[in-house]
Amino acid sequence: MTESPDTGAADPGPTQRSPLQGQVVFEDADYLDAVVDLLGAIAYGELSAFERLVDDARLAPSLRDKVEMCAMASLEFGHVTRLHERLVSLGADPFAAMAPFEAPIDLFHAHTAPADWYEGLIKAYVGDGLAADFYREIAAYLDAETRDLIVASLADAGQASFAVRHIRQAIDADPRLGGRLALWGRRLMGEALTQAQRVAAERDALTALLAGGIDRPGLDLAAIGRMFTRITERHADRMSELGLSA
Amino acid sequence: MTESPDTGAADPGPTQRSPLQGQVVFEDADYLDAVVDLLGAIAYGELSAFERLVDDARLAPSLRDKVEMCAMASLEFGHVTRLHERLVSLGADPFAAMAPFEAPIDLFHAHTAPADWYEGLIKAYVGDGLAADFYREIAAYLDAETRDLIVASLADAGQASFAVRHIRQAIDADPRLGGRLALWGRRLMGEALTQAQRVAAERDALTALLAGGIDRPGLDLAAIGRMFTRITERHADRMSELGLSA
Repeated sequence: MTESPDTGAADPGPTQRSPLQGQVVFEDADYLDAVVDLLGAIAYGELSAFERLVDDARLAPSLRDKVEMCAMASLEFGHVTRLHERLVSLGADPFAAMAPFEAPIDLFHAHTAPADWYEGLIKAYVGDGLAADFYREIAAYLDAETRDLIVASLADAGQASFAVRHIRQAIDADPRLGGRLALWGRRLMGEALTQAQRVAAERDALTALLAGGIDRPGLDLAAIGRMFTRITERHADRMSELGLSA
Repeated sequence: MTESPDTGAADPGPTQRSPLQGQVVFEDADYLDAVVDLLGAIAYGELSAFERLVDDARLAPSLRDKVEMCAMASLEFGHVTRLHERLVSLGADPFAAMAPFEAPIDLFHAHTAPADWYEGLIKAYVGDGLAADFYREIAAYLDAETRDLIVASLADAGQASFAVRHIRQAIDADPRLGGRLALWGRRLMGEALTQAQRVAAERDALTALLAGGIDRPGLDLAAIGRMFTRITERHADRMSELGLSA
């Protein structure tokens, strides 16, 4: 694969200059709010990814493929428990923390219901990859403990190699499929951006985190631009890994 | 709870007199066929229980209840992997072993789709309990290693206390609910018996296992009658645990 958990910290390297260590940083109420928001968003994202993977597994062409997709789903669910434990240790209610993200994440899924097994596979790989890249970019601005938990929660559960293998085989067998699936990838990207924008507009703590604070480095507009460029490039990498144009 | 993994061996105690030890017993091709059938049936049953629990979790009245139901589902899925490993070690293809049980188990679920959260909870508890009792009864006639695996696979994943707590609260709040849910419990029992009968008629190896062999004790008609009486009694125990008449 073309990505690694470290790439999110490549520019401008806030984690190297940042003084965010241990529990001290959580004395800043705004920072705590932002971390609770972020963990809540990821936890709800993983929960709904779990549900969607199990749902999309029904489209599997064989019992073997179905079991493999359900196994990936089960792995994703394991992360929810660990994110909840962290939220509780920060004094937050995990269910209250997830609640604000139900609507945008459910809408993302409602607008991207796969029409067949292949669209489901691409969604599992490309959709989860997009979300993971975005969260990892934000995680680079956090204390080490929170960042490590987030990076571990976003580890690929096997979707990548599973999807790449199946999609490449399918396009070899029916090259016309490539055009439809390339469009599908663009739609996933567009819908993800729409919902991310909605969250950014509604969750002040999260956007304030990116903007920085008195003793926390933040992103200026140029840096935010570079962040979106990186996310877009990684999306294109994944699409070409699948043999599709982005 | 009113049951324990040992109750299946209470009558007539074949595991005490049976010479089924180690791998020797698998030299009997009929015995091997029956064990492969049984493990395949349980594996497909667990897989589809996993899918149904995740599906029924959508009916949850709160995010907390949904997460708890998905956690139970994930636990069930873990058993599928271990059953598959055992099938492979017996030289069987796990997917071929599961295949004959897709139709009856899918039909059971198609005929017992819950109309609401409470029907889903009762199905998770009563339906899984029924299946577990039935498989444990058969497991009593098997070698120790297979029996232990089956008993571990059928361990309650938390459905029992979760369902009992929620159903009792709901009936306290709306006593009329009790009548509808009692009917639902009877329907689950009837549908389970219909599908079990279908499997018994189609899978000779499994029924031959119950009938016994030259060096294996089996069940006469009276013993089969007692087995069904025990299964029915345990079903009634579960219903009364829920505060419902069986």
